[in-house]
Amino acid sequence: MLTTTDPRTGVSAITALASTSPTEVDAVAERAVKAAAELRRRSREFRAALLDAIAASVEAARDTLVATADAETGLGAARLDGEVSRSAFQFTLFADAVREGSLVEAMIDHAAETSLGPAPDVRRMLVPIGPVAVFGSSNFPFAFSVLGGDTASAIAAGCPVVIKAHGSHVLTSQLSLEVLQEAARATHAPDGTFDAVFGQEAGLALVAHPAIRAASFTGSLAAAESLQRAIHTRPDPIPFFGELSSINPIVITEGAARARGADIAAGLFASFTGSAGQLCTKPGIAFIPEGPSGEAMVESLKGFTTAARPQVLLNDRIHASFGAISERLVKGGAAKVATGLTAPGSATASDDSSSGGFTVPPTVLETSAALLTQELAEECFGPLIVVARYSALEEVREAFRRIPKSLTATLHMEDDEAAITAELSPVMEASAGRIVFNGYPTGVRVTWAQHHGGPWPATDSQHTSVGVTAVRRFLRPVAWQNAPQAALPDELRDGYEAIPRRIDGLLVLPDPRSEG
Amino acid sequence: MLTTTDPRTGVSAITALASTSPTEVDAVAERAVKAAAELRRRSREFRAALLDAIAASVEAARDTLVATADAETGLGAARLDGEVSRSAFQFTLFADAVREGSLVEAMIDHAAETSLGPAPDVRRMLVPIGPVAVFGSSNFPFAFSVLGGDTASAIAAGCPVVIKAHGSHVLTSQLSLEVLQEAARATHAPDGTFDAVFGQEAGLALVAHPAIRAASFTGSLAAAESLQRAIHTRPDPIPFFGELSSINPIVITEGAARARGADIAAGLFASFTGSAGQLCTKPGIAFIPEGPSGEAMVESLKGFTTAARPQVLLNDRIHASFGAISERLVKGGAAKVATGLTAPGSATASDDSSSGGFTVPPTVLETSAALLTQELAEECFGPLIVVARYSALEEVREAFRRIPKSLTATLHMEDDEAAITAELSPVMEASAGRIVFNGYPTGVRVTWAQHHGGPWPATDSQHTSVGVTAVRRFLRPVAWQNAPQAALPDELRDGYEAIPRRIDGLLVLPDPRSEG
Repeated sequence: MLTTTDPRTGVSAITALASTSPTEVDAVAERAVKAAAELRRRSREFRAALLDAIAASVEAARDTLVATADAETGLGAARLDGEVSRSAFQFTLFADAVREGSLVEAMIDHAAETSLGPAPDVRRMLVPIGPVAVFGSSNFPFAFSVLGGDTASAIAAGCPVVIKAHGSHVLTSQLSLEVLQEAARATHAPDGTFDAVFGQEAGLALVAHPAIRAASFTGSLAAAESLQRAIHTRPDPIPFFGELSSINPIVITEGAARARGADIAAGLFASFTGSAGQLCTKPGIAFIPEGPSGEAMVESLKGFTTAARPQVLLNDRIHASFGAISERLVKGGAAKVATGLTAPGSATASDDSSSGGFTVPPTVLETSAALLTQELAEECFGPLIVVARYSALEEVREAFRRIPKSLTATLHMEDDEAAITAELSPVMEASAGRIVFNGYPTGVRVTWAQHHGGPWPATDSQHTSVGVTAVRRFLRPVAWQNAPQAALPDELRDGYEAIPRRIDGLLVLPDPRSEG
Repeated sequence: MLTTTDPRTGVSAITALASTSPTEVDAVAERAVKAAAELRRRSREFRAALLDAIAASVEAARDTLVATADAETGLGAARLDGEVSRSAFQFTLFADAVREGSLVEAMIDHAAETSLGPAPDVRRMLVPIGPVAVFGSSNFPFAFSVLGGDTASAIAAGCPVVIKAHGSHVLTSQLSLEVLQEAARATHAPDGTFDAVFGQEAGLALVAHPAIRAASFTGSLAAAESLQRAIHTRPDPIPFFGELSSINPIVITEGAARARGADIAAGLFASFTGSAGQLCTKPGIAFIPEGPSGEAMVESLKGFTTAARPQVLLNDRIHASFGAISERLVKGGAAKVATGLTAPGSATASDDSSSGGFTVPPTVLETSAALLTQELAEECFGPLIVVARYSALEEVREAFRRIPKSLTATLHMEDDEAAITAELSPVMEASAGRIVFNGYPTGVRVTWAQHHGGPWPATDSQHTSVGVTAVRRFLRPVAWQNAPQAALPDELRDGYEAIPRRIDGLLVLPDPRSEG
């Protein structure tokens, strides 16, 4: 049987859940294939209604979801309550997007005499890719797990979902699956629209299964590699959408440090310790100018840190990694300049670990931009930041070229520093998928224009796992040539005017709101 | 030095071209990196002007291009002249699409108070992915080679192009490169916008080079695998867009065979022998009903075939494959029921091969749908078709599930056979990227709504290599959060109204033409 562990105490308990057997994985995958065929026949309105029903089902289960996840993750009720809201919001946003209809990219080119001769009628739109395997992450038990954006994306695309539950929150995963299935029942979705498997072996079997047509994953590079190896054993490769690793550099200019160094230090502290630093967008490196303004900023950051209470990490693996990576960074040349309290009323780490909980102290390391290597830019899940002091902007630009690429890059600058912005913009754009100005990378707005992705190893650089365009991962184009009306999807038939369509090259909106 | 071979005679000649050395590949790739940085600074209007200039440059070189390619491919002046037109048209179409601007998918979500709290301003658009390696195909010396859709797509995206020239038409490739460079000079494009490498080793070095950010390829599964292995040696995977193999099944209903069997036989003959059967969309399997109407169709197809003159294949490898695959198909159980003339005035294959040219006779094989295996559905480049007779539609549906997936699937049916269309539509949609009704899969319209892709092994199923949306392969999303206006691309600035943009979730057109 699978166990659940309270990260605050390290105490495990046996659950009623078991790892999914190979035979059960087969059965789940086959049900997903049948569901895919039926979902393909359902309308966009059905998908939207299902997404709305999930949002309602999530809201109805809010208290139990938060309590269950809090016991398994130690993230705290406030953060988890917010995450449930985000999860529900995501389903509603995607329901609206499905109704709006641009996501299917409907295009019609009527038969015509062209400069290349007579051309047939060609109509194109995006259709569901088929059953999707979704690998839940440890750090967002709702928003990047069973009730997360990947599930919302797959359903918005019209694909059934088989979730690989994260071993760090199995009870939350099972409860979340029931929430999804409740919504499926309420909307008469086909059997097999939602399912889940438990255990690493089941996850590997899932991505190798012929029924699965795409996989999405948020987690470590090592776990991603093992899944990709399993995918490479398939006769037919399938797309693998991984969000893997991100160091999220943040640059503070001399002007910004001078004008609002104390504010930025406070913001930076909140950003690198929020959710115990276990966010893929946590700022891992801060470039801070040498000189008195930068010095004051660093002192302020150290002050917040040394006064800070210890933080609970999600599981023993992340807890062990935090220690190992901090050691590697120090060995690599970064000086440990501040650590928080290790346990309430205690000053040493050993006392704390004797409590059995997965707690660590917030930590600030320091180095110089000129010495920053790829090794010193290793992602460390947990409340740790590396401060890299710089004397000239060129050192920052050079360092960006050496360190791994990220989901985000952030710049704090003043209005009169436009030249610096212009100088850093190209390297930030080449290094990250989202560029943040005078803010912090944590806190990812879920909206149309969001992009949560970036050059490798952040992701494969062309897709996002947050925001409405994440749906595109689970769609594929199909063109119909000279098709009779009855053989076309509704959205491509003559006279269908409910969604934006491109007709003979011209984008046409459903009603004259283009004056917008 | 590299050689060029006349496929009509098999006679080779030495050219002034040489394989590209590893040092030269490095130099080419580094120039492409510099060009990428400069192209990123240029406007959409610049890209459009460059595309238009290429079209003009192609037109200006038309006669030399056709003559050079005819000597290297044996495809004939008429076909090649049409292909030059298609190539030029493609650049113009993509220029128009770049000006229209939807391809960058500009989106703006203003800062707002939301149900999840205050949200920052987020703006997103697609930016060039960086230098693209384009692998030219043998069978379209223009439209899928140096002057092909991949080059047009990369330039439309704003990416420099390094072409791996196909060994089967090196002189055409070099001439085509000069045509591109002429247009680059005319528009003051940066040095390194277009370059080419020659030789297999250079191609492998190219996709492994850190400078290259994406690769596109049209060719065999085996060649694609060797490129993918080279890509897997990179620390950072890059997207590989391959169009690899396609059998293009075509189904003729009893009604269609009865109503217009002779017409369909003529159309099918033209389709499987056009360009000597060397099209990725060539119908490789025809499902024809048993009974007198189907029998008459097959007889008619055999009649066209036995009277047909021999056809010249592109190179010795394709020539050798044609023989080997035909043999395998016969060994696998398909009966050879018709072959064309092997050489003018001759009746045996041996006489013809003594001429030294790469000629083969058009060939019809026959089997039954019930006996059709994956082995009998091996793609055979060249003028060969397998007729699969069926007694019940269920045999066709079952066969579709056994044979490899394709770029296209085609159905000939009558108006009163809507039930058959409905029954076959799901399996055709699952098997192919384009579904053709009462037509032939060869002849791919270049337009917005085209999709030239399909489930593996046709492609990786999510991208197209023909049509305007092919540009998406070479773009990646970037989001800007709370960016000052000066740090934003033009397309995302306040008040920019020249292109369609999605603002706060609402698609807004540049002017009120939405009434369409």
